[in-house]
Amino acid sequence: MNRIITIGREFGSGGREFGKRLAEHLQIAYYDKEIITEISKKTRLAEEYVQQVVENRPIISFPITIGHSFYSIFNPVLEHSNNVYMEQSNTLVEMAKKSDCVIIGRCADYILQDYNPFKVFVYSEFDFKVKRCIDKAPEGENLSEKELKQRILEVDKNRAKYYQFITGKKWGDRKNYDLCINTSKLSIKDVAKGIAKMFLKS
Amino acid sequence: MNRIITIGREFGSGGREFGKRLAEHLQIAYYDKEIITEISKKTRLAEEYVQQVVENRPIISFPITIGHSFYSIFNPVLEHSNNVYMEQSNTLVEMAKKSDCVIIGRCADYILQDYNPFKVFVYSEFDFKVKRCIDKAPEGENLSEKELKQRILEVDKNRAKYYQFITGKKWGDRKNYDLCINTSKLSIKDVAKGIAKMFLKS
Repeated sequence: MNRIITIGREFGSGGREFGKRLAEHLQIAYYDKEIITEISKKTRLAEEYVQQVVENRPIISFPITIGHSFYSIFNPVLEHSNNVYMEQSNTLVEMAKKSDCVIIGRCADYILQDYNPFKVFVYSEFDFKVKRCIDKAPEGENLSEKELKQRILEVDKNRAKYYQFITGKKWGDRKNYDLCINTSKLSIKDVAKGIAKMFLKS
Repeated sequence: MNRIITIGREFGSGGREFGKRLAEHLQIAYYDKEIITEISKKTRLAEEYVQQVVENRPIISFPITIGHSFYSIFNPVLEHSNNVYMEQSNTLVEMAKKSDCVIIGRCADYILQDYNPFKVFVYSEFDFKVKRCIDKAPEGENLSEKELKQRILEVDKNRAKYYQFITGKKWGDRKNYDLCINTSKLSIKDVAKGIAKMFLKS
């Protein structure tokens, strides 16, 4: 079975950089935005739309009862959204089957549980996350510190809700992971080098 | 400031072996039972007694009110127990001041918070802990599997209570640590080698 390393991460903690460096050290595939591109190709929906769907809690369809009959109403938005979720699972499974890899987010720890992934959660002190977001802000993004703090809280709140919805478990709870690492005290470069060493024979 | 690495651990998870190997890789001091020996010397109480005191939740002395007066009753057991706790803190601080070190248990992550320790928590799947305890059982220990399972649960329950009492925080909660590592999937040897690498420059 391939070695699959899944990475859940708090917004601004450097989980993505950590995952990328880890994959480089181990010389294995790295999947992050590639997942969205793949789903977009399969569903023929725009990447922006797919991104927006997988970042929000799925909408659930309840059949409507009239008298004793059930009516399922065709809803194109719901249909699209269901396709996106289905394709997300299919894509993750394909990636896991293909080769050793690092996968960022997407509840991959849960969706790929049959592939016995090594489940990592990356987190940081709040001040560290704020500083990192300021340092790494894309050109043209001019959020005030207050707005930035709100955004960090909001993104993490959504990730927690989404994880809870898909897996029924608490996002970031140590018991759901094999390794939880706080990136506030050591450089992400050193952390990735060390964690890679755990997997490398030499 | 010296590098202090504190290790909290579930019973049977191999936290002690991990700490010892980590200290060896980093070539720094390792304190575990040495703490008990030191407290025993300072308090002139038997090591077995000290061990028993620090493994149980401290007894708290409440003054007795009669009418409007408070009476503090001299209680030698309580007195010994308080001395042990005081000496435990002093000993940990002395160790932290002396040199870089790895310290096992004793709520050192909390007691040494002014020394900015790197706080590790080591845990495992329950079945892994049972197997490890059977493999590592000292000669002459003949617990049945059922008794062993009860013991693991009991020791961890006591550790959680003790930690909660001393620190006011939840034992094993990811938010109280810098690194949480599950020792079920990788060998403790490899994990220690990798974590050491995070601290070593090369």
